[in-house]
Amino acid sequence: MGKIFIKGCTIVPISGPVIEEGVIAVDGDRLYYVGPANALPAGWQADTVIKADDKVALPGLVNAHTHAAMALLRSYADDLPLKEWLEKKIWPREARLTREDIYWGTKLALLEMIRSGTTTFADMYFNMDAVAEAVLEAGLRGCLSQGLIGFQDEDGGRLASGVSLVKEWQGAGDGRITTMLGPHAPYTCPPEYLTKVADTAAGLGVGLHIHLAETKGEVADIQSRYGATPIALANRLGLFELPVLAAHCVHLTAEDISILAEKKVGVAHCPESNLKLASGVAPVKAMLSAGVNVAIGTDGAASNNNLDMVGEIRTCALLAKGISGDPTAVPAHQALVMATLNGARALGLDKKIGTLEAGKKADLILVNKRLPHMMPSHNVEADIVYAASGNDVDTVIVNGKILMSGGEVKTLDVEEIYAEVKKRAG
Amino acid sequence: MGKIFIKGCTIVPISGPVIEEGVIAVDGDRLYYVGPANALPAGWQADTVIKADDKVALPGLVNAHTHAAMALLRSYADDLPLKEWLEKKIWPREARLTREDIYWGTKLALLEMIRSGTTTFADMYFNMDAVAEAVLEAGLRGCLSQGLIGFQDEDGGRLASGVSLVKEWQGAGDGRITTMLGPHAPYTCPPEYLTKVADTAAGLGVGLHIHLAETKGEVADIQSRYGATPIALANRLGLFELPVLAAHCVHLTAEDISILAEKKVGVAHCPESNLKLASGVAPVKAMLSAGVNVAIGTDGAASNNNLDMVGEIRTCALLAKGISGDPTAVPAHQALVMATLNGARALGLDKKIGTLEAGKKADLILVNKRLPHMMPSHNVEADIVYAASGNDVDTVIVNGKILMSGGEVKTLDVEEIYAEVKKRAG
Ligand SMILES: [Zn+2]
Ligand SMILES: [Zn+2]
Repeated sequence: MGKIFIKGCTIVPISGPVIEEGVIAVDGDRLYYVGPANALPAGWQADTVIKADDKVALPGLVNAHTHAAMALLRSYADDLPLKEWLEKKIWPREARLTREDIYWGTKLALLEMIRSGTTTFADMYFNMDAVAEAVLEAGLRGCLSQGLIGFQDEDGGRLASGVSLVKEWQGAGDGRITTMLGPHAPYTCPPEYLTKVADTAAGLGVGLHIHLAETKGEVADIQSRYGATPIALANRLGLFELPVLAAHCVHLTAEDISILAEKKVGVAHCPESNLKLASGVAPVKAMLSAGVNVAIGTDGAASNNNLDMVGEIRTCALLAKGISGDPTAVPAHQALVMATLNGARALGLDKKIGTLEAGKKADLILVNKRLPHMMPSHNVEADIVYAASGNDVDTVIVNGKILMSGGEVKTLDVEEIYAEVKKRAG
Repeated sequence: MGKIFIKGCTIVPISGPVIEEGVIAVDGDRLYYVGPANALPAGWQADTVIKADDKVALPGLVNAHTHAAMALLRSYADDLPLKEWLEKKIWPREARLTREDIYWGTKLALLEMIRSGTTTFADMYFNMDAVAEAVLEAGLRGCLSQGLIGFQDEDGGRLASGVSLVKEWQGAGDGRITTMLGPHAPYTCPPEYLTKVADTAAGLGVGLHIHLAETKGEVADIQSRYGATPIALANRLGLFELPVLAAHCVHLTAEDISILAEKKVGVAHCPESNLKLASGVAPVKAMLSAGVNVAIGTDGAASNNNLDMVGEIRTCALLAKGISGDPTAVPAHQALVMATLNGARALGLDKKIGTLEAGKKADLILVNKRLPHMMPSHNVEADIVYAASGNDVDTVIVNGKILMSGGEVKTLDVEEIYAEVKKRAG
């Protein structure tokens, strides 16, 4: 912690125009100053000085939907029909995962996230207390929810564990850990269960993290069971009276889009997972036009197969154009807003993070631009979105603490993680 | 040159199954042995030994369609309507490019290509002798064609320069440079010009590199002018009697696909450029099912915006699934075949390169797999396709010569290239 002074960098604050040769002053866990070099008050002394010529500073990236522990299942099964992939491969393997497996799989994911510039992530899985421990160690910011399968929760034990997570971990790690309840989806949670979870969340003062409208099959199924789309059903059940983080939202009606906008639902768009599982392509241009808060997520590494948000931003921006037929859809700046400020808002953290502004928490990344694919650098936002990769991230700071410097992660033991995940990969 | 011995690596030969803990022996410009460690003849002595534990060996990647010099225009203009992008930005800027600009822009591109594992590329641009010079220096393999705009070639000067390129450069650099004639597209070259170029190519014994069916507008335009789709027109004019490398092929009829298969046209699928310019998505699954030889290209850096073939392979594999609705479309191995052997075949080089087999030219790359996003390594082909990026390439060998080792490019002066492209970027 202490005072960090970053100088000579190009700043993409998100909240305003790009600043060339700017400086950033970090004081404790907060941004003290972000702006041109000549404006820092004289006499401000730093403990650590980072020379950041040839670097671009951005708010840390927000991965709005993932299942971190699934990094352990990366390339375990690919290129299969969805039903076979889930029922013959993923679910049986997940059933054999121990709490320790989840802890180490999550550590692998956090290592990858830090390396590729993610500073905050929204996670839904099981044994989430193990995930919380890993987050504390790694130093990121995590919005955690225990996944709740209503059809397997006759005795309410799962909901109880979701509640425990909230009670035990909300605000831990100097506020780096926040929590939600995680009803998995309307096709795994019946209406009365969803209502119960929502009531519980309201009582706890937390939001909901849920999968909605991921596949055509799901929409048809919910429509035939309940006479409503997944979005309309969730709305009818009152879920959207709470802050909701809704993953996927691929298959939407115009009415669905209106509901998402009106109810300020945070949508976690997961373009690569949706492509890989052949779920389809979310109507991002239409959602953004309607004023929906669309953020970006990677989903788990079993269906992506990496957690590189820089690549995900790129896929989001390219796909929105190709699918809408409009090359002006999701321009570079907007794609960056989606992966930072919109993500922060979807997680209920936009007052604390998501932009580089004095007073906000010091969550930021420095990206190397002295690389062949970033040259000759006509437009730094376009270079980040269309040419960069997560590997270009050099420095990561969360809550005023340097988690990575020169590409080297300081909070995690890389060799130990590799050894553990290799051992547990079987 | 000399003898290189690579040991301990996982080999993805493309021509056969993955080999764990294999070795590769390079003798001069050729692969002498590729296989399990215990089978190398005793007494075979190497000049250079590469310890490649934690590395994956693959054939060098083939970028089947690009305009290398446009690296100079990376992020010069993005997120604009196609007409404005071309007419107000790209074309006026290109008109001001000097031969030296093209030389340095190409060197930037070649640096990026080597760094990201491309060993062979098909290029179409202007001042292609400057490109050829850059290729000689950099050490890659290039299939070069001067871009021919029929409507601007009243006096035949452009065709003459295309012919000169073939005569002067075919086979240069120990065979690393090959050539084609490059009629730009049916909408810029009238039928009689296309026929003339094809006749000239036949006389020279080279093939054609052309853009076909990139946009809906082009297809409608050609249909109304000539009463045929671009593919059918090219076929009617006899172009496909020659070896043809056809870029894009986005908007195709079933009849078009049959022609491409029957005439053994090499298709350079450019998914990211097609998305970014909102041209659409090529029917890759249908083409592959029909037996079309589909390769992968990045197109130029103005519409991509990088030349990372590893990322392009990924986009190809993900997009084919998402668009077809079939998660088994373009599985990992097939995506790798497209970017190696299919590319080699599309460039007429499949007897020399495209797989790791004894007797072929020694064009290969080593990719680092001891990285968070490549762990825990259940399936190496899936990890390369779905999780890797071009930045993970460690070593590049072309024609038996080491162009990059430990991520450091040996044939190009990186700082000089950066200085030159910065100067020329305006
Ligand atoms: Zn999910
Ligand atoms: Zn092109």
